Amino acid sequence: MYPTIAVESRLSQQLQFVMEIDKLKTILRQTLITDGSRRENSAEHSWHIALMAIAFVEYAPEAVDLLHVVKLLLVHDLVEIDAGDTFCYDDHGNDSKPEREQRAAERLFGLLPPDQACEFRAYWDEYEEQITTNAQFAKALDCLQPFLNNLQTNGHTWRLHGISRRQVEGRMQAIAVGAPALWSWVEQHIEGAIAAGYLKA
Amino acid sequence: MYPTIAVESRLSQQLQFVMEIDKLKTILRQTLITDGSRRENSAEHSWHIALMAIAFVEYAPEAVDLLHVVKLLLVHDLVEIDAGDTFCYDDHGNDSKPEREQRAAERLFGLLPPDQACEFRAYWDEYEEQITTNAQFAKALDCLQPFLNNLQTNGHTWRLHGISRRQVEGRMQAIAVGAPALWSWVEQHIEGAIAAGYLKA
Repeated sequence: MYPTIAVESRLSQQLQFVMEIDKLKTILRQTLITDGSRRENSAEHSWHIALMAIAFVEYAPEAVDLLHVVKLLLVHDLVEIDAGDTFCYDDHGNDSKPEREQRAAERLFGLLPPDQACEFRAYWDEYEEQITTNAQFAKALDCLQPFLNNLQTNGHTWRLHGISRRQVEGRMQAIAVGAPALWSWVEQHIEGAIAAGYLKA
Repeated sequence: MYPTIAVESRLSQQLQFVMEIDKLKTILRQTLITDGSRRENSAEHSWHIALMAIAFVEYAPEAVDLLHVVKLLLVHDLVEIDAGDTFCYDDHGNDSKPEREQRAAERLFGLLPPDQACEFRAYWDEYEEQITTNAQFAKALDCLQPFLNNLQTNGHTWRLHGISRRQVEGRMQAIAVGAPALWSWVEQHIEGAIAAGYLKA
């Protein structure tokens, strides 16, 4: 390993953070990429939904700050570097998720200079709290993308875990809230997924 | 495969685009991820540099439009879905790159509704032309990230291809132009990489 760059200056702290977050590329999600060849990682997922925010901004329920939405999306999964990706339908894993992720947020954002540590932490907190329109629109996209990938991979994740209509409808409520204009499309394709045998009725 | 969603409406076109671009996750670059376990793909690379734009915006040479920079970065590699990733030090591959990428841009952005096809195409053109401060700052980050990953992986890509100081200095001029405040750090670490035997003097 090349000599570690000493954390002496603002730039060095920023570089340490930038190099540390490379690890998000090793965090695997349950979803497959659309060619079905492998599981998706959280870094490429974050890219995908950030680009979706740009393409789908017209479906936000009211005016959103697109830069802010993109920041929330690019940052929101970073805590998985320490806390791992918790499958959204894993009730047990989700019990311990908040504590694991809080510790991760402290360590990871704490690599940055203090002003930026606060700034990035605030993005993550806002996404988690799901109060602002920006955060709700961001979450709608974070739910829509694996929904699309599941449709494209014959319901791989749903079939693997025996996921039911009720579970998907519950999860996809984030779309009804954060991007209501997309909800009827989602509803229609939940029906399609049941008819195709991807989801349990 | 789930029945293809008919391209009938604006939303359907947008969804086709969003599903098509998933393929960027299969385009491999020469750079390794920092744990050295595998080559990086262009989707996760795009995520990394978009987040770097947020963390490093203070190093832009003059005020940039951060949302615009992030859009350029999230979009700029999409053409590789059809054209492949061309190694920046591959002179032969770079001869045919413009034509391959032009065709790719027409097909990929053409999946979107016309107004968005124009919008996304304009982001890609602006990045390629390298005239605006936004595009130059974006390119600086696109060069800095693999530089960092090479330092972290014992100069893997440089050693594999026998890359010289002259080649890296040429490539990294984009940092001198687009983020001059970072240049002395880069220069210093080029010297370090030569001393460590990662680069040919």
